[in-house]
Amino acid sequence: MKKNIRLVLEYDGTRYDGWQKQKNTDQTIQGKLETVLERLAGGPVEIHGSGRTDAGVHAVGQTANFHIEAECCPDAGTAMDYLNRYLPEDIRVVAADEVPDRFHSRLSAKRKTYAYYVETAEKKPVFDRKYVYGLGMRPDAKAMREAAAYLVGEHDFKSFCGNKKMKKSTVRRLDLIRIEEQGTRIVFTYTGNGFLYFMVRILTGTLLEVGLGKRAPEDMKAILEAKNREAAGATAPPEGLFLVNVEYEPECGCRPLP
Amino acid sequence: MKKNIRLVLEYDGTRYDGWQKQKNTDQTIQGKLETVLERLAGGPVEIHGSGRTDAGVHAVGQTANFHIEAECCPDAGTAMDYLNRYLPEDIRVVAADEVPDRFHSRLSAKRKTYAYYVETAEKKPVFDRKYVYGLGMRPDAKAMREAAAYLVGEHDFKSFCGNKKMKKSTVRRLDLIRIEEQGTRIVFTYTGNGFLYFMVRILTGTLLEVGLGKRAPEDMKAILEAKNREAAGATAPPEGLFLVNVEYEPECGCRPLP
Repeated sequence: MKKNIRLVLEYDGTRYDGWQKQKNTDQTIQGKLETVLERLAGGPVEIHGSGRTDAGVHAVGQTANFHIEAECCPDAGTAMDYLNRYLPEDIRVVAADEVPDRFHSRLSAKRKTYAYYVETAEKKPVFDRKYVYGLGMRPDAKAMREAAAYLVGEHDFKSFCGNKKMKKSTVRRLDLIRIEEQGTRIVFTYTGNGFLYFMVRILTGTLLEVGLGKRAPEDMKAILEAKNREAAGATAPPEGLFLVNVEYEPECGCRPLP
Repeated sequence: MKKNIRLVLEYDGTRYDGWQKQKNTDQTIQGKLETVLERLAGGPVEIHGSGRTDAGVHAVGQTANFHIEAECCPDAGTAMDYLNRYLPEDIRVVAADEVPDRFHSRLSAKRKTYAYYVETAEKKPVFDRKYVYGLGMRPDAKAMREAAAYLVGEHDFKSFCGNKKMKKSTVRRLDLIRIEEQGTRIVFTYTGNGFLYFMVRILTGTLLEVGLGKRAPEDMKAILEAKNREAAGATAPPEGLFLVNVEYEPECGCRPLP
């Protein structure tokens, strides 16, 4: 009999080519996890993430699940301990539980939260240097909040999609954009029902251009209407981005995890 | 005319052979600072730190000072900006000011504070993995606090001195040892009028042995009395240690820095 195990993961994306397993690199989060799990299972294991994080992007609350024979893995704690023993130092399982068979990390996901960290000081703080975008200038938070108000809600985010060949719907619902100033740091928080390729980084890059006076807050309306990537701003770099949390439907039968 | 400039520095000690300049390595904090300052000054500059940090030890509030011709460096901000432009990413000046000629970072120092971070979870948190000692066990904080009480005050700390050939006085005054539990983390804070070679790391290593039941709290008395390094516990590893703050006499003529 197979068990369905859910994991909550944190990882430092700095030295990885993103979440998704690829043919031309073994430096992916999914690849590292599957390699260890296959040793535990004694055979191939497929792990499903809640979504792909790009190369260089970090996570404090990525969720993933996999099915494994109960005889190899009597409980979720076994998988967590085994993974934490053999995974590299920059990937860690922070929680694990057994979930109903129908649970799927990506398909059952209801909402996701990302955070993007920007440093306004001329030089980045030493201990966070790999986890912030070093803008080195102080953008106007009030103007950015005004711009963000145009983006919240259900919209076609085609202008904020990094995949120009995207064939599926680019309509998504953004429930929240919070912009907080913490000393010399600015933290952008985004919660929504789904995010397109590069969407958080393009949103942040565009909001920063508003903050630096290169665009007006009300330009957001025209950018959304253009449905054209060229209309939006630059893609902010990956090192400032964290996948913070994934929320699931109560119907998926899971308790919320920390 | 020469100016005396004081710097407050943060650095990630991971890839350095400590503070002090040495002949056989150019990977020292002092060496990196002097190299940049000599370019600014157009000649040799000697920088005085409040004390040497060991290889692998970090700082969030190291203090240093140097003398420089006013024509090369009209104000402290010039030195700070120049250093932050040319120093590596893992060393940063967080504050700078001009101080009276008589100020000396080491000789004028009145008290220092160090913090030591211990992780009790089986695997270290990903983002702090280079800044904590991964003990992987939960020591008894109450027993450690009881032991620490024997160490606070003025004592001969010869048993806690890593330099066995130390000829000068090993008497120091410890004003505070605080032991805080923060989730799976334990933070040791030490404030005193001076610290011997490896002293904080030997204090922490010894207290952890008490916490793990290998020694009794009251053993501290005999350890102090022995005046012998062999009587104390192991030297805790460098990666958990931070120089947090250096306090100066009001007579040194300086305002306190952040």
